[in-house]
Amino acid sequence: MYDLAVIGAGPAGLTAALYAGRFRLNTLILEKVSAGGQIILSSEIENYPGFPGGISTFELIERFKKQIHELGLTIDNSEVCQLQQNSGNFDIITKENSYQAQSVIIASGAKPRRLGVPGEERLTGRGVSYCGTCDGPLFRDKEIMLIGGGDRAVEEAIFLSGYASKVYLVHRRSEFRASAILIEKARNNPKIEPVLESVLEEISGESRVEKVSLKNTKTGAISQIPCSGVFIFVGIEPNTGFLKNILDTDEKGFIITDQQMLTSEKGVFACGDCRSKTLYQVITACAEGAVAADSAHKYLLNR
Amino acid sequence: MYDLAVIGAGPAGLTAALYAGRFRLNTLILEKVSAGGQIILSSEIENYPGFPGGISTFELIERFKKQIHELGLTIDNSEVCQLQQNSGNFDIITKENSYQAQSVIIASGAKPRRLGVPGEERLTGRGVSYCGTCDGPLFRDKEIMLIGGGDRAVEEAIFLSGYASKVYLVHRRSEFRASAILIEKARNNPKIEPVLESVLEEISGESRVEKVSLKNTKTGAISQIPCSGVFIFVGIEPNTGFLKNILDTDEKGFIITDQQMLTSEKGVFACGDCRSKTLYQVITACAEGAVAADSAHKYLLNR
Repeated sequence: MYDLAVIGAGPAGLTAALYAGRFRLNTLILEKVSAGGQIILSSEIENYPGFPGGISTFELIERFKKQIHELGLTIDNSEVCQLQQNSGNFDIITKENSYQAQSVIIASGAKPRRLGVPGEERLTGRGVSYCGTCDGPLFRDKEIMLIGGGDRAVEEAIFLSGYASKVYLVHRRSEFRASAILIEKARNNPKIEPVLESVLEEISGESRVEKVSLKNTKTGAISQIPCSGVFIFVGIEPNTGFLKNILDTDEKGFIITDQQMLTSEKGVFACGDCRSKTLYQVITACAEGAVAADSAHKYLLNR
Repeated sequence: MYDLAVIGAGPAGLTAALYAGRFRLNTLILEKVSAGGQIILSSEIENYPGFPGGISTFELIERFKKQIHELGLTIDNSEVCQLQQNSGNFDIITKENSYQAQSVIIASGAKPRRLGVPGEERLTGRGVSYCGTCDGPLFRDKEIMLIGGGDRAVEEAIFLSGYASKVYLVHRRSEFRASAILIEKARNNPKIEPVLESVLEEISGESRVEKVSLKNTKTGAISQIPCSGVFIFVGIEPNTGFLKNILDTDEKGFIITDQQMLTSEKGVFACGDCRSKTLYQVITACAEGAVAADSAHKYLLNR
């Protein structure tokens, strides 16, 4: 019986493990694919405090891993299929095994909603990005395409106009969904060119993004626009299918917690991109992992 | 008129500035003494994710500073005496100047409550510590003294017993204030030796802690105990005097915020050790700084 099982080894799960290891909890870490999480969608990160000049996401994750290896912790490569309560403890069922733990931290992350257009997957990290805050500075004085029409998309367009020479803001409807004042700011911004009633058909380029094809939803006309980057903000999806609705979530499936990362189930904590929150960043994921481990530690001390 | 004023340049304020700089906000950063905050009470930090083997707190702060200098931001060395609302904006009054900003992030930190005994100040960072999670591993197989009787003190005693060969748990009353189950665990722990009805009189040592003098509160007898470390957990105090009660705080004066770091005053955000919360760490301070800057950015976009 483990004291704690951490599900997911992105920045949130790895930091939860770091703190749990330092609390001397007997900790199991389970990761479906390989350590890293959504951060690996970006090649470099400039806004993680402590690394002036930026750091490659690969190296940052290696550093996180090394830090937990120093505590004697290892990552078990298994996909969790189900989590169930079992007389005050938890059964964590993977494809090959079943584990028992007194407490569980869910750090299973999320994935950007993809459009599924040709070229999108192949050019991710090579001009296709799902994070303006992370990658904006890489597109200084370049023309970029931004897909989306909600608050997040328009906020990111305004933000990215601080770097890019031009931002095409592509939305399928005849009006943006974002709040009026944001739309007004975008419209008054000489660098932002709204492209309404249009959908992305294809992203092309040999080793990096070179151009996109857009289709006008009214006329069906196809236009080709050269650009260096394509930012896609059509939402993200939490990796929480394995939970089969045992925890309270928001309407999009993100796990609801309080400030101490407590979920609706006693002994289960959540952190990182699978949480319902406003800012999805490496630094926030790490901090939430630390808080979740601290809360699990207090839970175990007091049970 | 600045877009944003950040008060305090510890990990929370520096990360708020990093994010604000990347949001291209015209940002003023004010710091009373020198950048760093409470972290400088420890010489090294092992639990900030990204630095296997640990990093000196001095170097970490230098890295944080360099990252904001890269964005063209500088730290203004001034002590804020007062903050006041002025028709939707804010006047930030320092000893020498007065500044105006549309929004404010309070990251003014806290200080550990000190006992005020001889030797305490001189040996801080040389065996005297106010953070078990930070410094515990530095006392592997050594004897340490821990002062305090609440939940935090007893939790830290149990945690530190994972490293130290012996933990004297010194409390001035005849019983600990901590919850029963914690006291039970401490009493069942062979490494923890409770020393009740005793107060710390003096900490001695040439370049590092060597011994302490304890006074029995009933008999008045003085005993001297050799030890390598003295951990003091008698609470912390927020640096929020300059706010003169314009924000909602908890009973100890820590600023109350929601998960987005919004305070009770529109346009004012708080992060780091001056906040009411459960875990006071560098990683949590940084994340809260990022969230506060993101919230300030959204506030400015939508006003």
